[in-house]
Amino acid sequence: MPRLRELGVTPGLLSPGSHNAITDVPGVRVGHTTLITGEGPLLPGEGPVRTGVTAILPHGGNLFAQKVVAAVQTLNGYGKAAGFEQVRELGVIETPIVLTNTLNVGSTVDAVISAMLRANPEIGITTSTVNAVVGECNDGFLNDIQGRHVRAKHVWHSIERAAAGPVTEGNVGAGTGTSCFGFKGGIGSASRQTGKYTVGALAQTNFGSRPHLTMLGVPVGQHFADRLLPASPPGPGSIMIVLGTDAPLSSRQLGRLARRAAFGLARTGSISSNGSGDFVVAFTTAHPRPHSPAGTVEPVTRIPDEAHAVIDGLFLAVVEAVEEAILNALLMADTMTGRDGNTLYALPAEEVRRLLHRG
Amino acid sequence: MPRLRELGVTPGLLSPGSHNAITDVPGVRVGHTTLITGEGPLLPGEGPVRTGVTAILPHGGNLFAQKVVAAVQTLNGYGKAAGFEQVRELGVIETPIVLTNTLNVGSTVDAVISAMLRANPEIGITTSTVNAVVGECNDGFLNDIQGRHVRAKHVWHSIERAAAGPVTEGNVGAGTGTSCFGFKGGIGSASRQTGKYTVGALAQTNFGSRPHLTMLGVPVGQHFADRLLPASPPGPGSIMIVLGTDAPLSSRQLGRLARRAAFGLARTGSISSNGSGDFVVAFTTAHPRPHSPAGTVEPVTRIPDEAHAVIDGLFLAVVEAVEEAILNALLMADTMTGRDGNTLYALPAEEVRRLLHRG
Amino acid sequence: MPRLRELGVTPGLLSPGSHNAITDVPGVRVGHTTLITGEGPLLPGEGPVRTGVTAILPHGGNLFAQKVVAAVQTLNGYGKAAGFEQVRELGVIETPIVLTNTLNVGSTVDAVISAMLRANPEIGITTSTVNAVVGECNDGFLNDIQGRHVRAKHVWHSIERAAAGPVTEGNVGAGTGTSCFGFKGGIGSASRQTGKYTVGALAQTNFGSRPHLTMLGVPVGQHFADRLLPASPPGPGSIMIVLGTDAPLSSRQLGRLARRAAFGLARTGSISSNGSGDFVVAFTTAHPRPHSPAGTVEPVTRIPDEAHAVIDGLFLAVVEAVEEAILNALLMADTMTGRDGNTLYALPAEEVRRLLHRG
Amino acid sequence: MPRLRELGVTPGLLSPGSHNAITDVPGVRVGHTTLITGEGPLLPGEGPVRTGVTAILPHGGNLFAQKVVAAVQTLNGYGKAAGFEQVRELGVIETPIVLTNTLNVGSTVDAVISAMLRANPEIGITTSTVNAVVGECNDGFLNDIQGRHVRAKHVWHSIERAAAGPVTEGNVGAGTGTSCFGFKGGIGSASRQTGKYTVGALAQTNFGSRPHLTMLGVPVGQHFADRLLPASPPGPGSIMIVLGTDAPLSSRQLGRLARRAAFGLARTGSISSNGSGDFVVAFTTAHPRPHSPAGTVEPVTRIPDEAHAVIDGLFLAVVEAVEEAILNALLMADTMTGRDGNTLYALPAEEVRRLLHRG
Repeated sequence: MPRLRELGVTPGLLSPGSHNAITDVPGVRVGHTTLITGEGPLLPGEGPVRTGVTAILPHGGNLFAQKVVAAVQTLNGYGKAAGFEQVRELGVIETPIVLTNTLNVGSTVDAVISAMLRANPEIGITTSTVNAVVGECNDGFLNDIQGRHVRAKHVWHSIERAAAGPVTEGNVGAGTGTSCFGFKGGIGSASRQTGKYTVGALAQTNFGSRPHLTMLGVPVGQHFADRLLPASPPGPGSIMIVLGTDAPLSSRQLGRLARRAAFGLARTGSISSNGSGDFVVAFTTAHPRPHSPAGTVEPVTRIPDEAHAVIDGLFLAVVEAVEEAILNALLMADTMTGRDGNTLYALPAEEVRRLLHRG
Repeated sequence: MPRLRELGVTPGLLSPGSHNAITDVPGVRVGHTTLITGEGPLLPGEGPVRTGVTAILPHGGNLFAQKVVAAVQTLNGYGKAAGFEQVRELGVIETPIVLTNTLNVGSTVDAVISAMLRANPEIGITTSTVNAVVGECNDGFLNDIQGRHVRAKHVWHSIERAAAGPVTEGNVGAGTGTSCFGFKGGIGSASRQTGKYTVGALAQTNFGSRPHLTMLGVPVGQHFADRLLPASPPGPGSIMIVLGTDAPLSSRQLGRLARRAAFGLARTGSISSNGSGDFVVAFTTAHPRPHSPAGTVEPVTRIPDEAHAVIDGLFLAVVEAVEEAILNALLMADTMTGRDGNTLYALPAEEVRRLLHRG
Repeated sequence: MPRLRELGVTPGLLSPGSHNAITDVPGVRVGHTTLITGEGPLLPGEGPVRTGVTAILPHGGNLFAQKVVAAVQTLNGYGKAAGFEQVRELGVIETPIVLTNTLNVGSTVDAVISAMLRANPEIGITTSTVNAVVGECNDGFLNDIQGRHVRAKHVWHSIERAAAGPVTEGNVGAGTGTSCFGFKGGIGSASRQTGKYTVGALAQTNFGSRPHLTMLGVPVGQHFADRLLPASPPGPGSIMIVLGTDAPLSSRQLGRLARRAAFGLARTGSISSNGSGDFVVAFTTAHPRPHSPAGTVEPVTRIPDEAHAVIDGLFLAVVEAVEEAILNALLMADTMTGRDGNTLYALPAEEVRRLLHRG
Repeated sequence: MPRLRELGVTPGLLSPGSHNAITDVPGVRVGHTTLITGEGPLLPGEGPVRTGVTAILPHGGNLFAQKVVAAVQTLNGYGKAAGFEQVRELGVIETPIVLTNTLNVGSTVDAVISAMLRANPEIGITTSTVNAVVGECNDGFLNDIQGRHVRAKHVWHSIERAAAGPVTEGNVGAGTGTSCFGFKGGIGSASRQTGKYTVGALAQTNFGSRPHLTMLGVPVGQHFADRLLPASPPGPGSIMIVLGTDAPLSSRQLGRLARRAAFGLARTGSISSNGSGDFVVAFTTAHPRPHSPAGTVEPVTRIPDEAHAVIDGLFLAVVEAVEEAILNALLMADTMTGRDGNTLYALPAEEVRRLLHRG
C-alpha cells in the first residue's frame, strides 16, 4: 500500500519532515498494538477481534514529572474521549495519549493509570493523582466491540514499544478495525516544517460518507459511488487527531492550532457528521513543565500572537499535516473482513493515482 | 449524626421536599456501596480501604432507551470526570451518574458500560455506543487509592440497589473516604420546592480549607482553627455536585442551573481551590428523549427564559439545595481513621449547634 | 459578473432554493447600503469611502417581540462581533443581524438600538434592554476606515429596505470594500434544500491568502499566483457567516450547524488565519419565541439529534451553502480602487470557468 | 457614607493594600464621569439623567502599544459586554476597560475607538484595528436610559482623568444610577495582598434581590425586608467586575481568577439571577505584550499552576476583594431619586454596623 506521496503527488505548500510523520517532532514516539483474531459470526465477548491500541508519547521521559503544554478541542462531541477537563484547566498533558476503541476507553484509562503508578509510585499518596488522556473510535462494524478485547497489557505494550522514526500506518493499533468514507480506514500520519518548527499529525480515521470523499480536490468518493461499498453502512464514525509540535506555544495558542485541524479534515470531504466524535489533542514539546517546579515563578518562551507569519505558518502546517495524515491512513489501510463477514475494502491506490493525475 | 435542620436551623428561603434529598425529584434513585476494610500502614494495592461508589439514577427505567436532558459544568477542571464531551454536544445523559474515587474512574466507566450492555445488548452492534458519566474525588488521605478497590460488582450493586426515599449520607458510597474543610466529608443531599417544581442536589464533598468553612454565615472554620485538625493536611480536594429537577428545561437551561451550583458552594466558604476538581452534572426528568424516536420532529415543552420568576425560583433552589447538601454531608460524616492512621474528625454537631444559634 | 453556477458547474450534492440565497428561507430579508465616494490619497476622516452595511432580518415582523432561536460560533476570535454573550446565554436573537466595517461596530450597535427603540418604546423603561448582533470585517485596504462613514441612517436604511428575493452580491453593503484571497471580495449568498427544510448562508468575505484559494477542488489561487495581485498585501482579513434555516432546532443544535460553517469555509482554502475574525451567526425561523410569553410553559417542536439522516442533511446543507456563498461573493465582486489608489482586482470569471472545466 | 471597614469590621483573612482599591495594583488608574441632571417624569431622550462612565486603565501608558494579558468570564450572559471574543482568542486587552449603562455600549465602544485612534493614528491603516472592552449595567430605573446621555466626551474625560490613588465609590461614574439588592448601588472597590502580589477588584453593582442580601454572613436583607424598598421593583440587574493584579499569570490563569469572582459575588447573597448580566474582566500588569514585538520568540515569566499555595492565595484574594468591593459599593451609595420620582434608598450604615456587630 502506498502513502499519498508515493502516488506521485505533492500535497500542500509546505515540506514534510524526514518521516512525514508526527515523529518528526523531536522526541515524539508512537507505539501500536494490533489485535486480529477469529472470523465469522459475531459472538459478543468472544470475537472476531479487529481492534487495537495506539500510544503517542510527547517525549521519552517521565511524562508525569515533565508534563507537556497542551490543549484539546472538541469538533463534534459525540464521543467518549477522556481526560479533557483537566487539560482545559491546567493546559498540560502528563501521560501518553492513548487511542483505542470506544468501549475500551474505561479500561484503557485504568491501564494508563497503572503504568503511571509504576513509574511514579507517589501518585495519590504524597502528590496529586494523574489525568489519563484517551481517545477512541467505534470499530464495531468489524470488531466485537462489546468484548473490550484491549487489555491493560496491550496498552502497556503500546507505550513500552513506542518509538521514534517512521510510523506504521493503516490497519494497525487503534486503526485496526476502523472505516473511512466507506473504505477501510486506519492510522495515518504526516508532518510539515514551517520556519524552524515542525508540526506533526496522527489520525485515527473512522469517519465520512462515501460521496463526500475528496482527495486533493478530486471527488474520488463519487468515482467509487457504487463500487467497493460495504454490504451495510458502517454507521457514523469518528476521528481522533493528535497534533505535536516543537514550537514554543502556550495552551491557548495550542488550542488555536487544534481548531485548525477542522480545516484539514474538511479538505478530505468531512462534514463532521452527526454521530461522529471528532476530537483534537495538541501538545508542544517545548518547555515541558515540571510536576515539582523549583520556584514559584518560572521563565518560559513563546511565539507572540503578533508574529503573524510564524503563527500562520503553524496554522497552515496543521491544516496540511491533518489532511495528509487522513489520506495516508486511507491509502495504507488494506481490505479487512471482520465480524459477520463484514468487509471494508481498501481504497484502490492505482485508480486513485490515475484520478489524481487526471486533473 | 444530625442533618443540618436537626440543629434547629432553617436554612434558606425555600422549603425542601419530603426527604430533603435529590430523591424528592420523582423517579430519582440513589444507591451506595461502601468499602471499609483494613487498618494501619498503607500497603499500596492492599489497603486500608476507605472508598466506595454512589450511583444516581435519573429514573428507574432503561436510561439508554429513555435518555434524560442534561448539562455539565466544570467549575474547576482539576479532575477526571468522564463523559462530559458527549453531554455537551447532545444535551442528554443515557446512563446512571456514578461517583467514586479518582483512580477508579476508568474501571467504573468500564463497569457502567458492562451494565448498559446487559440491559441493551444492541449497543455497538446495531446502534451507537454508550456514554458513561462518572465523577470522582480523591480519597487518598484515608484510602489506598492506588489499589482501585472499587470493582465492577460494586458499581453494579450501587446501581441495582439504588432506591427512592431518604438518601443515606456521610461516610457512605463515594463519600466514604473524603474530607471537607479538614473535617471528615462525605455524601450529602438536600432539595427545594419552587412553584410546582422540585430541585434536588447530591454532593460528594472533598474540598475546602479549614479557615474558610462557613455555615449559614457563621465562620465555623475559624472556631475550629486549631482543633480537630488532621495530623497532616489532606491535600487539595474536589466536589462533585449532581442536580436533578422535574422542571421542563432544555440542556442550555440546565447549564444555567448548573452554573448556580457555584453560588451554593461559595456560601460554605469554598474558593474552588487550585487543586480541586469541581464539577456539576444537572438533569431533568421532564420529557425524556427516546433513543429511537418515532418521528423526525418531536414536541417538547419547556419553561421560557422570559418567565423570570420561575427561572429565578429554580436558580435559588439550586443555590440553597447545594449549600444544604454540602452541610448535610459534613454533619453526617463521622470520624474515620484510614491508611497510616490518618484520621479525619467529625465536625462536632453540638458545638456547631451552639455556634449557629449564637448569631 | 457571474455567480458560480453560471460558470456551468454544479457544486455539491444538494439542490439550492429558488434564489440560491439566504432569502430562500421563508421570511428572511436582506438589505444593503453601499457607500462609495472619493478617490485618491487617504485623508483619515474624509475618505475615500468604500464601505457599507448589510442587514439580515430573520423575519419581517417585530424581532424584539418575536425573537428567533439562534446560536453563535467563533471560529477565530480576532474580531469585534457584538452581542454574542447574550445569544450564548439565552439562545435567541432579537434584532436584525447587521454587518459593517470593523471600526463602525460601536456606532452600528447604537443605530440598531435606536431602530429597536422606535419600534419598541418600552425597552429599558418597562421591559428589559435589547441586544444588538453586529458583525464586521476590516475594509481598511480600500476604505477610510478611521472615518467610520457608516452613519445611523445607513443602518436604518439597510433594515428598512431589506427584502425577500434575490440577494445582491459582490461590492455591496458590508462587502463594498472587502478583499478575498487577494482579489476583490464582497457579499455572497447561497442555499440548500434538505428534506423539507432550507438552509441559507450569507457571507461577508474578507479573508484568505492567494495561494490557498481553492474552487471546487481546483487550486485557482496558484494559477493566479503572480497576477492580479494588490500592490501591497491587504493584511489579515475576516469572514462573517450568517446561517438561516426553517428547521425546528434548539440553540444547542444551531450551534452544531454553526460549527459546520468551518467545513464550508475550509473547502475554499481558508486556514482561518491568525488575524482573521471568523464568526458564525445561525438562526431558525421555526417557533419564534415571544418576548412576553403567554404562560410559564411553552410547547416547541424540534428535530431529535437521533434523526441522523435529517441532522446530517442539515450539516451538509450548511457546508455546501457556505462554500458556494463565498465563491459567489468572490465571483460577483468587481475590481475596485480605493484609498491611496489601492486596487483589488476581480477574479477573472472566464479564466475560472476554464480552470473549473479542465478537471 | 462609610466603607465597610469603617464599620469596625475586618472582612476576610487577607490584608488589603494601602487604598483598599484596584489602584493598589501599581499602575492601575480609575476615572469617572458622573451625569446627574433633571428630575421628574421620564421624557425619553430628555431625562432625568442618572448615569455615567467609569474607566479602568491597566497602566498609564499606551495600551494599544503595550497590551496587558487578560481574560474574560461570563457568569450570566444576559448583558451586552463588548470586546470579549478577541480577549478570549488572544488573551490581551489593548484599551481602557470602560463601564457605562446598557444602551450606551455602542456609542462608548465608538468613543473608545476614537480615543485609541488619536493616540495610535496607524490603526486600521498600517496595522490592525483595535478591540474596545466595554461593560454595562442597566440603570433605567433612575435614568433616562433611552436617551443614551453618555457622549464621547464623557468617555474621553473618564479616560483622561483616570488616576492612581483612592477610588471614588458609590453614586459615581457607571454606578451613578444603579441599584443593588433593592438599595442604591454604585461603584465599589477593594484589594488584597497575597505574598508579594496584589489583587484589586472594582465592581459596578446593579444586582440582587432584597431578601438575599448577606453581609459577612449576616442576613441583612431580611432585616430590611419591608423597609426602604423602592416603590416598584427595579427589575433584574447586573454586575460588572474588573480584576487587576501584578502577579505574572497567563490568560488561562487569569481566566481561573475570573471564575473565582463568582465566589465573592455569592458571599453577598447573589444567585446570579436570570436577567442579570454578570461579567468579569481580569488583567495582569505583569509582562505587557508589545503590539510590535522585537522578535518571533519572547520570554515571559509566570507562576506555575503547581505552586498551589501561591495560586490559592490569589484565588482567595479575588474572592475577598470582590466581596468587599460589592459591599463598599452598597455602603458608599447615597439615596437617589431619578426618573418618575423613582427612589433607591441608601443602605443605612449605622443599622448595618449594629447588625454586623451583633453576631
